[in-house]
Amino acid sequence: MSAHDAIDVIRAKRDGIELTGDQIRWVIGAYTAGQVPDEQMSALLMSVFFRGMTPAELAAWTQAMIDSGVRKDLSPLGRPTADKHSTGGVGDKVTLPLAPLVAACGVAVPQLSGRGLGHTGGTLDKLEAIPGWRASLTEDEYLGQLRDVGAVICAAGNDLAPADKLLYALRDVTGTVESIPLIASSIMSKKIAEGADALVLDVKTGSGAFMKDVESSRELARTMVGLGEAAGVRTVALVTAMDRPLGRSAGNAVEVAESLEVLAGGGPADLVELTLALAREMLAGAGRSDVDPAAALADGRAMDTWKAMIRAQGGDPDAPLPQPAERHVVTAPATGTLTRLDAFALGVAAWRLGAGRARKEDPVSASAGVVWHASVGEQVTAGQPLLELQTDDAARIERALAALDGAVGVDTDDTVLPLVVDRITA
Amino acid sequence: MSAHDAIDVIRAKRDGIELTGDQIRWVIGAYTAGQVPDEQMSALLMSVFFRGMTPAELAAWTQAMIDSGVRKDLSPLGRPTADKHSTGGVGDKVTLPLAPLVAACGVAVPQLSGRGLGHTGGTLDKLEAIPGWRASLTEDEYLGQLRDVGAVICAAGNDLAPADKLLYALRDVTGTVESIPLIASSIMSKKIAEGADALVLDVKTGSGAFMKDVESSRELARTMVGLGEAAGVRTVALVTAMDRPLGRSAGNAVEVAESLEVLAGGGPADLVELTLALAREMLAGAGRSDVDPAAALADGRAMDTWKAMIRAQGGDPDAPLPQPAERHVVTAPATGTLTRLDAFALGVAAWRLGAGRARKEDPVSASAGVVWHASVGEQVTAGQPLLELQTDDAARIERALAALDGAVGVDTDDTVLPLVVDRITA
Repeated sequence: MSAHDAIDVIRAKRDGIELTGDQIRWVIGAYTAGQVPDEQMSALLMSVFFRGMTPAELAAWTQAMIDSGVRKDLSPLGRPTADKHSTGGVGDKVTLPLAPLVAACGVAVPQLSGRGLGHTGGTLDKLEAIPGWRASLTEDEYLGQLRDVGAVICAAGNDLAPADKLLYALRDVTGTVESIPLIASSIMSKKIAEGADALVLDVKTGSGAFMKDVESSRELARTMVGLGEAAGVRTVALVTAMDRPLGRSAGNAVEVAESLEVLAGGGPADLVELTLALAREMLAGAGRSDVDPAAALADGRAMDTWKAMIRAQGGDPDAPLPQPAERHVVTAPATGTLTRLDAFALGVAAWRLGAGRARKEDPVSASAGVVWHASVGEQVTAGQPLLELQTDDAARIERALAALDGAVGVDTDDTVLPLVVDRITA
Repeated sequence: MSAHDAIDVIRAKRDGIELTGDQIRWVIGAYTAGQVPDEQMSALLMSVFFRGMTPAELAAWTQAMIDSGVRKDLSPLGRPTADKHSTGGVGDKVTLPLAPLVAACGVAVPQLSGRGLGHTGGTLDKLEAIPGWRASLTEDEYLGQLRDVGAVICAAGNDLAPADKLLYALRDVTGTVESIPLIASSIMSKKIAEGADALVLDVKTGSGAFMKDVESSRELARTMVGLGEAAGVRTVALVTAMDRPLGRSAGNAVEVAESLEVLAGGGPADLVELTLALAREMLAGAGRSDVDPAAALADGRAMDTWKAMIRAQGGDPDAPLPQPAERHVVTAPATGTLTRLDAFALGVAAWRLGAGRARKEDPVSASAGVVWHASVGEQVTAGQPLLELQTDDAARIERALAALDGAVGVDTDDTVLPLVVDRITA
């Protein structure tokens, strides 16, 4: 095919005609090779936004993105492998305790991760709060750590679905991010290429999530589970609550600290519950449903694996975490039951305090974030400390407080989602 | 606004939210200035394809395109002015006799024209078949000729809706040509900027036209009439037949020759009828409905104006026209009534013989084209010469014949459109 054929592909999609596998493979390959220009790809992406994709189109699109790079083969490990992907939520630090926990149960976790953008933080940004820890590993370091420790969380290399990297950057500036088939193929191309035997998807739903309503979240979950299973990966999705934030903190160092509480056998109830639910799904997907992850938390095996994982990547697991220069306390507005703690508002506040970035090249502050002293459903007393805003830059507090306007409610008639809203299987 | 706002504009249009006049003015201006990149504009154009535009959006969009250049002021002429625009048809050479005819009736015709692309020829390409004639005039030459001769057909300069030039080139490669609001704003921005008091639109309908069905043609006509009237230009549209070609020839020199027949008081009946119908509309729009254009054809005044117009642009109106090196005759397949002569097929055949271009930078052949010896509705005898293919390159004949497969029908039950299907006013 020639560059002129891109117009035929755009027109077909625009007019609701199903694209052939050949057309999809060609357009993704030619775009990645720089032979189809951005303006043609963005017109195609907008047509996909309006027309959607059939299951056959979506499978071909995802496979073409995988084929733009390498699909890793982890079979030489001689051990079952499983990974988890979250669509991103406020206070969602589950990956940090989950990866060493599952590894401690005998299933290797090969997590290749990205940076955070916007109001939900990135796993690598959180781990970089640990003195010495580095996100980039060579292929040999990665495989060696997976063999020796059983868990790796590191930066994805450029060999993993490079087409997705280009497409995501284009979608970001052309208003074509919010498309379920494009989201699903972006996530699943990278996760399938990672090479794990089993995959558990945590699809967040609610104000703090990318998908605000349960039905869209279910649709995204079903679409991704279908893609994973079609590619031979055992895939399950949990749709989980993100109307309020998860755990008791949002930021970088504060989320590492909270993860350590979980690994030490404590931690907030919702965070522990979700970590265990996801661990059980990963173990079951990898054929080890006989193992109880709660025991590995209780007896310290998960903490040992965490320390080994951090040390293997140059980090000092016992070093003090960075502390903020400024703290600002917000008190409870009334006495009663905390019925609203809006996830989106807290995420934006943490972001404005310095915990997140607006552009890929921006740095993040390790010590910025928000801690809350009560979870939704708990009793609070008027005037008690409820939120603590943490930052290195006092000038950021005012705008963070503005984001929190209306975020807290006591005895309001808000209804909250159950922590696990739904479980989606093939 | 900043470049980031382009994403907000795209998202609003994508989600069906009406754009403000400020947003539209900004995005057209910033795109023309190179501050909004092609990939963002193409995503916006595709969103317009799916969502359409409200009348207020369309008026602002068109005005922004006009404001990207100059709107000419022809009032110093001290004479009424009128122009015509055709959406393009096979064998449509009406502009050639029409401009001098209307000028001969006392209304100046300031036609700024473009090149042909695809299977319908361009007016400038046809006139360039006349030895010596040149399409490019300086502003002074243009105004002087308009004052002295009363009719100009020349190439539009870069000062006329430059935003449209950029947008059209982008639409051409991104599958966003076929959108009524985008077509209407593209045509009307240039025609309004031209500065005529009155405008008559010939919206073609049928196989050889851009709009294949009558309802779409009516919608395009209504949209354009609305834009013209809103900008203070008296505007009328005729929806006319393009299921069969117009007149008896399609090409460049052959269409000039046929135009000369009309100017000499003869010519094919359909071509004369449409030329007079459009002339009456232009005269009426310019306040001169008292003048009868048929008289100006009959008494030679239109021919005199034609010769003056051609000479003013360096052409020799009495020089022999270029003749083709090769002629190939196609005979009538049966005896009976010619009931089908497909416009699209004839247009493609003329294009393949060399009369049109695939890319803007391609040259065209002055002598290539197709002549037909009978019009739809006339009697033909099996074996009589029906079509004559003309070209400088014998190798082109075979592919032209392939385009004509099934194009001719005798005593088939085709129904043909009336020449003037509808008349659309504000």
